[in-house]
Amino acid sequence: MTQSTAQKTERTDPEHKAHVLTLPLEETQTDRQPHHYERWLVAKLMRMAGSPPLRFRLWNGDVIEPEGQEARFVLRLTDPKALYTLVANPNLAFGDLYSAGRLEVEGELPDLMETLYRSVHAARQKWPRWLDALWRNHNPRSTGISEARENIHHHYDLGNEFYQLWLDRAEMQYTCAYYEQPDLTLEQAQLAKLEHVCRKLRLKPGMTVVEAGCGWGGLARYMARHYGVKVHSYNISREQLAYARAEARRQELDHLIDYVEDDYRNIEGQYDAFVSIGMLEHVGKENYPALAELIKRSLKPGGMALLHSIGRNRPMLMNAWIEKRIFPGAYPPSIGEFIEICEQGDFSVLDVENLRLHYAQTLTHWMERFNENQDTVSEMYDEHFTRAWRMYLAGSIAAFRAGSLQLFQVVFTHGTNNDLPQNRKDLYTRPAAPENV
Amino acid sequence: MTQSTAQKTERTDPEHKAHVLTLPLEETQTDRQPHHYERWLVAKLMRMAGSPPLRFRLWNGDVIEPEGQEARFVLRLTDPKALYTLVANPNLAFGDLYSAGRLEVEGELPDLMETLYRSVHAARQKWPRWLDALWRNHNPRSTGISEARENIHHHYDLGNEFYQLWLDRAEMQYTCAYYEQPDLTLEQAQLAKLEHVCRKLRLKPGMTVVEAGCGWGGLARYMARHYGVKVHSYNISREQLAYARAEARRQELDHLIDYVEDDYRNIEGQYDAFVSIGMLEHVGKENYPALAELIKRSLKPGGMALLHSIGRNRPMLMNAWIEKRIFPGAYPPSIGEFIEICEQGDFSVLDVENLRLHYAQTLTHWMERFNENQDTVSEMYDEHFTRAWRMYLAGSIAAFRAGSLQLFQVVFTHGTNNDLPQNRKDLYTRPAAPENV
Repeated sequence: MTQSTAQKTERTDPEHKAHVLTLPLEETQTDRQPHHYERWLVAKLMRMAGSPPLRFRLWNGDVIEPEGQEARFVLRLTDPKALYTLVANPNLAFGDLYSAGRLEVEGELPDLMETLYRSVHAARQKWPRWLDALWRNHNPRSTGISEARENIHHHYDLGNEFYQLWLDRAEMQYTCAYYEQPDLTLEQAQLAKLEHVCRKLRLKPGMTVVEAGCGWGGLARYMARHYGVKVHSYNISREQLAYARAEARRQELDHLIDYVEDDYRNIEGQYDAFVSIGMLEHVGKENYPALAELIKRSLKPGGMALLHSIGRNRPMLMNAWIEKRIFPGAYPPSIGEFIEICEQGDFSVLDVENLRLHYAQTLTHWMERFNENQDTVSEMYDEHFTRAWRMYLAGSIAAFRAGSLQLFQVVFTHGTNNDLPQNRKDLYTRPAAPENV
Repeated sequence: MTQSTAQKTERTDPEHKAHVLTLPLEETQTDRQPHHYERWLVAKLMRMAGSPPLRFRLWNGDVIEPEGQEARFVLRLTDPKALYTLVANPNLAFGDLYSAGRLEVEGELPDLMETLYRSVHAARQKWPRWLDALWRNHNPRSTGISEARENIHHHYDLGNEFYQLWLDRAEMQYTCAYYEQPDLTLEQAQLAKLEHVCRKLRLKPGMTVVEAGCGWGGLARYMARHYGVKVHSYNISREQLAYARAEARRQELDHLIDYVEDDYRNIEGQYDAFVSIGMLEHVGKENYPALAELIKRSLKPGGMALLHSIGRNRPMLMNAWIEKRIFPGAYPPSIGEFIEICEQGDFSVLDVENLRLHYAQTLTHWMERFNENQDTVSEMYDEHFTRAWRMYLAGSIAAFRAGSLQLFQVVFTHGTNNDLPQNRKDLYTRPAAPENV
């Protein structure tokens, strides 16, 4: 692996590079013998992480085996400084070192990460206080109106061509798909997700929908196409909106869809449905009361709301590396914090569904395509970027598999609304996924 | 209406009478002219309650009309003292005065109560502080192990013959039914509820289930009969357990069911499923962390848990009259407090369903049968008791219709469990209700 500093394509502007850490690799590489306290540090690190089944290979080739078990994975550290960086703050350093090629992995990356998640989660209960304080994640950065613009630009404006390399070819969905059957293709599962959401909202022709955070606009187009509703979709990612508008025109749906380049906080009017797929993660806990107020004033008396978001079983900060390098400002709410939004708005929660393992499968499909296109990605950006994104995808697969992340769809309505479906049977009367995509 | 003090049947023991308020009616009855400030008080009361469409008829026949609208109901007060009692604390006094026959209603009682619930809920936002403090509900009494016994005895040991007069004849279910179709009979809907719960728990033959609070044992028998599982059901109501055991023997299911007369807190062992239908309302908020711990230790690694309970959209104390006269110690949790149990146990919430309007319909069916049998009830107890229970049923219908109460079914599992159903389609593949009951 080489450390490229040259710009390989126009996409590699300074801003896009800013979010991957560039360490002076040459200065830290060494073949020297590890000190005995360095070996002790590795052993200590393994114990603190719950003794996962992995072998460490140090910079000079020395090997440290796991205690009392077969190793399933090998972690290779290229230099002594990488070890110190890792020990000081594994949450942040693991991804950084991997991205920089100073930590190499033998074995399937998602499997290793899942093993680590499970092992650390179980071990954490017994950590001494000082370690819990040291290895903690940081508070997410601000998600105020102006900072939100930067946060979103950082990730979602990386370039539509980049996301097209590995997202589904049906509607460019960058959120959890719905694997109604385990063997669906990514395209089928993403369309099934859109259908499932529409059914939960009980859409009928002529209704009006407002969408907070629309990505490349696929849900709005699906709703307009299949349910004949009028959609107002808000987004602050300019690259995504350009795509969304062009695609709506191409599909001759632009008379039904208004893609608005504005912050969700500026939503106006009243609608039959309020929907937000994968935006709550970027809203920030401090803005939940305002979000509750916003939904309350935007929803007609008989209207239905659906929030779809990554979440947690209990409150926990976002992994430091993900918040710092991948998703600035991100905070997935615990299910309790999620529900608090509904309580604050005096809403009635009608339906909660957890699609956790569906997200693991979605990410697995994404990662397969990402890996198939990794040379192209490295040409568009550089090797560091490619490794960072591989780690992000693998780590996310692992987090959903290990139960560190959840995916909640929550349907709610005004507390005074009695125009409710009799039951949820209508969500399941016919397949949600199309047969051939 | 007469104030009976004689014991009409063996059922009317002093304890059972203790929970209905006996006011010295004769002393307060009067025909005197109302003072002008008494008329002012009534008008004020109406405004504070959000000006609902009801007419007051005072003890001497004087009428006070609602402001600017047609009256849909008439409230008749038999004596001046009733007015003062009502104004001082409507939450408690409305039910007491109705039970004592000192407040009479013209119009459908559930409709009146729904109108009042909606009107007061909307008006409350504008109440002055002093009124909010005056008209508040009280904290529920203790639900410690010994007090819980008294609380449960007070209500559930009223006598199986009494409950048989108006509950379903299929499995004596005293919890929300599931109206898969709106025109189901009470019997069909209660059996559909049991089936729906079993499906949500994904029961398979040979599994073991523990049930906290089993009523007359219908769920345990249904599970044993239809799913071939082994059930341990806990209850502290002796009358209910006697019925449950006799019925299990009669159905030759006693080899599969162990009805345990003990507090749920003493549950031991590990099971494939943990279920509790309509007990959480009696658990008390202060005991939620212990309940979370209990479920955590009682559930096998791949086990499923389901809690079914009355709840709220946001935290609120139980209506004072219901807590004092009907359900001592009762506190329906808000959905957030409900979910907190799952967070405390490090569980993963899989599914939440709100069956609010199903409970309104269940109660409507109960009330129809109760009214058909009201003479029998009055003979078993007395007229005061009958009126109190009519108010309880009507008020409950109203509370569910107006959205003041909700009914949540929450399914969850250990956060580490990956043995999850692909989706919820299997809950809906065939009708849950039997065709002929």
